[in-house]
Amino acid sequence: MNQILTPTGAAGPSTPALLKVLAGQSLAKPPIWFMRQAGRYLPEYRALRATAPDFISFCLDPEKAAEATLQPMRRFAFSAAIVFADILLIPGALGQDVRFEVGEGPKLGTLPPLETMRDQIEASTGRLSAVGETLSRVRAALEPERALIGFAGAPWTVATYMIEGGSSDRTGARTYAYTHPEALDGLIDILVEATAFYLIMQAKAGAQVLKLFESWAENLPEDLFERLVIGPHMRIIEKVRAAGIDAPFIGFPKGAGTLVANYVAKVPVQAVAMDVQASAAFGRQLQQTTAIQGALDPLLLRAGGAALDRRVEEMLVQWGGGPYIFNLGHGILPDTPISHVEQVLARVVGS
Amino acid sequence: MNQILTPTGAAGPSTPALLKVLAGQSLAKPPIWFMRQAGRYLPEYRALRATAPDFISFCLDPEKAAEATLQPMRRFAFSAAIVFADILLIPGALGQDVRFEVGEGPKLGTLPPLETMRDQIEASTGRLSAVGETLSRVRAALEPERALIGFAGAPWTVATYMIEGGSSDRTGARTYAYTHPEALDGLIDILVEATAFYLIMQAKAGAQVLKLFESWAENLPEDLFERLVIGPHMRIIEKVRAAGIDAPFIGFPKGAGTLVANYVAKVPVQAVAMDVQASAAFGRQLQQTTAIQGALDPLLLRAGGAALDRRVEEMLVQWGGGPYIFNLGHGILPDTPISHVEQVLARVVGS
Repeated sequence: MNQILTPTGAAGPSTPALLKVLAGQSLAKPPIWFMRQAGRYLPEYRALRATAPDFISFCLDPEKAAEATLQPMRRFAFSAAIVFADILLIPGALGQDVRFEVGEGPKLGTLPPLETMRDQIEASTGRLSAVGETLSRVRAALEPERALIGFAGAPWTVATYMIEGGSSDRTGARTYAYTHPEALDGLIDILVEATAFYLIMQAKAGAQVLKLFESWAENLPEDLFERLVIGPHMRIIEKVRAAGIDAPFIGFPKGAGTLVANYVAKVPVQAVAMDVQASAAFGRQLQQTTAIQGALDPLLLRAGGAALDRRVEEMLVQWGGGPYIFNLGHGILPDTPISHVEQVLARVVGS
Repeated sequence: MNQILTPTGAAGPSTPALLKVLAGQSLAKPPIWFMRQAGRYLPEYRALRATAPDFISFCLDPEKAAEATLQPMRRFAFSAAIVFADILLIPGALGQDVRFEVGEGPKLGTLPPLETMRDQIEASTGRLSAVGETLSRVRAALEPERALIGFAGAPWTVATYMIEGGSSDRTGARTYAYTHPEALDGLIDILVEATAFYLIMQAKAGAQVLKLFESWAENLPEDLFERLVIGPHMRIIEKVRAAGIDAPFIGFPKGAGTLVANYVAKVPVQAVAMDVQASAAFGRQLQQTTAIQGALDPLLLRAGGAALDRRVEEMLVQWGGGPYIFNLGHGILPDTPISHVEQVLARVVGS
């Protein structure tokens, strides 16, 4: 079952709304933030990004990453900031070559031997200390009533990139799960450890909430989902708790369908982020034991208009009675008009 | 709620096991068939395919299509044959150019105006009479205890190809649903009518079971799923029933996740086909009101080995107590070893 934690600072007068909801409260106006709210739809982001030689350097430059994190917070009444970083920083820190080519997805080099990576687990977090510095800078600049979220890619999702060498339809990685079960489990174990260290470091540096992005939870049969998603998420959270970190967790098993029920029954997250498919009834069922987040369609946000207003209203009505965090079901698209973001905020937060 | 029909011929001594399950019975040995069981993993299929100038001609040649349908029935103890055809025959019959280039997906020409296609609805079924002839030939050749399945692509799935001009990630079609709701609904209406006529023709020609392939039910928010999937499926089945056809329906809202619960609550199908994600518990929940079909991972079938045996056993145990049709969660892959298919059949059907 899910433990509802009362995180440090969740009781003061300036307690962020996000932390209240993650402690199990239902708020008349739900907190709101958007996945990829720091990103290419903002002209100030594009200008900032142009000052860095490549995407990884940009993520690991605390001054620039903190500025990227804060840009949407200046423009919009978002309830939370999420540290600007990438889920593929960990493979890089473990010794696999990771590059982002302009206009293409990430390209990863040959997967290093497991033993080599295993020796790098502790050092990998040190190599990502810039993310900690970004968090400290953002926390210092952000109003106390706005929460700061740290995150990591979940092991299976990160493993799919490491195995396939980039973005893929994951059939190679899923086949690998069947044909090389021990090698995959070994890789997942390394990622569990490295991710736990990384999240502990983020919490110590100022992250008040920790999110696990399992972006590729789709198309996994139940046995693989238990082995590759549920188990690793449980072990990460256990390790983070063992380090004395009580920051609430948001789990995002994207595309997991009915297996999300398995997930919330076993993984002690304080909220589950839902993808665009989330039905009203299923979300309410989840709210019996956990807070929920989501799940506006980014394509509808981009399209805008009266249909957007209607859908936002529907979501507020169907889920607003329980612990609910307003968000998209997937990241905001680069060509989303800023006025549409303002339109949603006006409806959710009011003016 | 779902009507459990007793189809014509479901009571005789040679009643196909598939029809028994679709009438609500639980069998000690479930019927088994595989999506794309007539296909490239069979050397005799590849030889036959090489005799046709292109894929569409191949589908519309009753002699060759009947032979392709029957090839796996000769080799394996499958409980049912599914007519060899393609979900993109309907756009072609409605006047949109459809080509299959070797080694590539389908390429569709410009979407004709709705009025033009609306005038072609009745004629479109006549243009697909070859599929009826294929069915008649197969039914004449097939043992009475083996069922014959007819099928069509469901309107939304077919519309995504028609709008995007081929295979896609469907973001264009989903955006179109928001930005051009009336045009999309008009297209869906045309496809509902043409699909109903087409399925009625198939049933009259010998199809004892009708399957609706909604291959792209994934990533649809609940409101779009209700509008683009549930509504159209209901209207198609209503039209087929109004024509006096009592053949049972299998619905396959692939990737619909928790929205499958909405689907079975509203669409009067006799079975729901499940994708690889189907959880044991969710399948059993569905079995309270309908038969279920699925959901072996095609990647595991291709990988083979002891893991394949274990998973097949697991599925038989978790779902065999209710009305259950053994199948894959998606089509069989072209490079699947034939011995793996035999391995599964030995376990499901016995020797």
